[in-house]
Amino acid sequence: MAGTTGKRPTTAHMIADPERMRSEILVARAAGRRIGFVPTMGALHSGHVSLVDRAAAECDDVAVSIFVNPTQFAPHEDYGRYPRMLEADATALEDRRVRWIFAPSAEGIYPPDFATRIMVDGPARRFEGEIRPGHFSGVATVVCRLFIAVPADVAYFGAKDWQQTLVVKRMVRDLGLPIEITVCPTIREPDGLAMSSRNAYLSPTDRGRATALAESLALAERMWAAGDEPAAIERDMTDHLRSRGVDVDYAAVVDGESLEPLANTATAAVALVAGRLGGTRLIDNRQLPTRRGTG
Amino acid sequence: MAGTTGKRPTTAHMIADPERMRSEILVARAAGRRIGFVPTMGALHSGHVSLVDRAAAECDDVAVSIFVNPTQFAPHEDYGRYPRMLEADATALEDRRVRWIFAPSAEGIYPPDFATRIMVDGPARRFEGEIRPGHFSGVATVVCRLFIAVPADVAYFGAKDWQQTLVVKRMVRDLGLPIEITVCPTIREPDGLAMSSRNAYLSPTDRGRATALAESLALAERMWAAGDEPAAIERDMTDHLRSRGVDVDYAAVVDGESLEPLANTATAAVALVAGRLGGTRLIDNRQLPTRRGTG
Repeated sequence: MAGTTGKRPTTAHMIADPERMRSEILVARAAGRRIGFVPTMGALHSGHVSLVDRAAAECDDVAVSIFVNPTQFAPHEDYGRYPRMLEADATALEDRRVRWIFAPSAEGIYPPDFATRIMVDGPARRFEGEIRPGHFSGVATVVCRLFIAVPADVAYFGAKDWQQTLVVKRMVRDLGLPIEITVCPTIREPDGLAMSSRNAYLSPTDRGRATALAESLALAERMWAAGDEPAAIERDMTDHLRSRGVDVDYAAVVDGESLEPLANTATAAVALVAGRLGGTRLIDNRQLPTRRGTG
Repeated sequence: MAGTTGKRPTTAHMIADPERMRSEILVARAAGRRIGFVPTMGALHSGHVSLVDRAAAECDDVAVSIFVNPTQFAPHEDYGRYPRMLEADATALEDRRVRWIFAPSAEGIYPPDFATRIMVDGPARRFEGEIRPGHFSGVATVVCRLFIAVPADVAYFGAKDWQQTLVVKRMVRDLGLPIEITVCPTIREPDGLAMSSRNAYLSPTDRGRATALAESLALAERMWAAGDEPAAIERDMTDHLRSRGVDVDYAAVVDGESLEPLANTATAAVALVAGRLGGTRLIDNRQLPTRRGTG
């Protein structure tokens, strides 16, 4: 087929076996290549692609994993209907300098008598940790497993799942896992909605309302800059979300690293928001600029 | 000093920093050397030394870690009084072809806001897992951390802590940790008492009684060979232990891998025993030879 098309797509090497994946990465690293890793659950959108492009810009080779991890979904959640589209995902990665797509089976990651769980306390405690019990344990366990299978130099995560990035960073530090974590900016639709594979679930009406999350974060940033207290900001965020029909799980302004209440207003803060529209749960967040203490 | 003594002891290189430890191991492995690792809590006895000698026989270089891991002790247990004798331990390893002694500080392994725990279900559930809640989580977490700091080819554990070897093997398989686990025979005093750093706690009277554990295991083996059922064996083991003044935690004949009740008598079985003499808790076990089903 060579020469029959004007441009040959770069086709990534698809690997399902964790041992084989690991040995290919180690061979590349032994040859002095810097490896970037983008772990995903597939259903790739521009947010994922931005992570891949960042990895390609900073590394010699890029590995992308596609694995819908059952253990980070609660029984009532959307594991069964979570979008699976491996071929479309592979197509989305063509020409993006991805060397490997690691797509293990569920049994490849979780043999029948799998019995190990990694629990992270600290930044995992509140918010998603409260609302989705077991979620971060599922995330931490699979991310550790993936980091063993894909022993890259650096892994890329999106800031959209801010709490997840804190949980992963804490686990990596605590266990001394030899990988850097790079957190990349959230990619948004033109109207501000954060990219998410779950946006596909939204009805047209709910899709219209979904901008309320980003709007509430913009409101938080304005109020924060004006010197308002977290409690007042959280109240106004919640009011705005409700006025747009969002069933609010939380709207919070907290310490950006510990996710605990802000000890003082000079601390780096983050605004976090989560809520449901129809049956679809959406989350978003925004870093708030450091401001002087008001005391 | 060279030349002043007839024989220079081989002095291991003592390292406290996990990152430095890791990089030395990786350099040695990149040079093609096979690395054996013996994780210990120090207070080294002939059992530990047998692991070191096995590692030295099978590997090019040997690393021994000495770290009394606080998280595998419950608050009421003997963490505070557990014997610490780093200099004597280093002396015990002289001339044994140990290249590195990894002796991190507690803070080097557990920074102040350490928040990660590895839980293993399955083989960790019963026996020590029931009696010492949190113990195997502490073991699994520190062993994972140590395996990252000491990325050896193979790690050596003593069969005396049989359940621990099962927990470690399960975690290694589940997370795909790139290390082999070799389990080595229990080393015993001439009268049969399994070597343990905790034997030093025993009063002379209790030291005399402590042979009851090994005796109960020998009894189990005789009864097993004669075709007795696990329940009858367990009853006689318990009677023997009590007759010698042992406060019995458990005396069990179970599946040697799952530690669940034996599905049938053709399964590989293990006899496990644990009890207290004075304030000292002792454990021991014995593999039982496979026998034909009695059905």
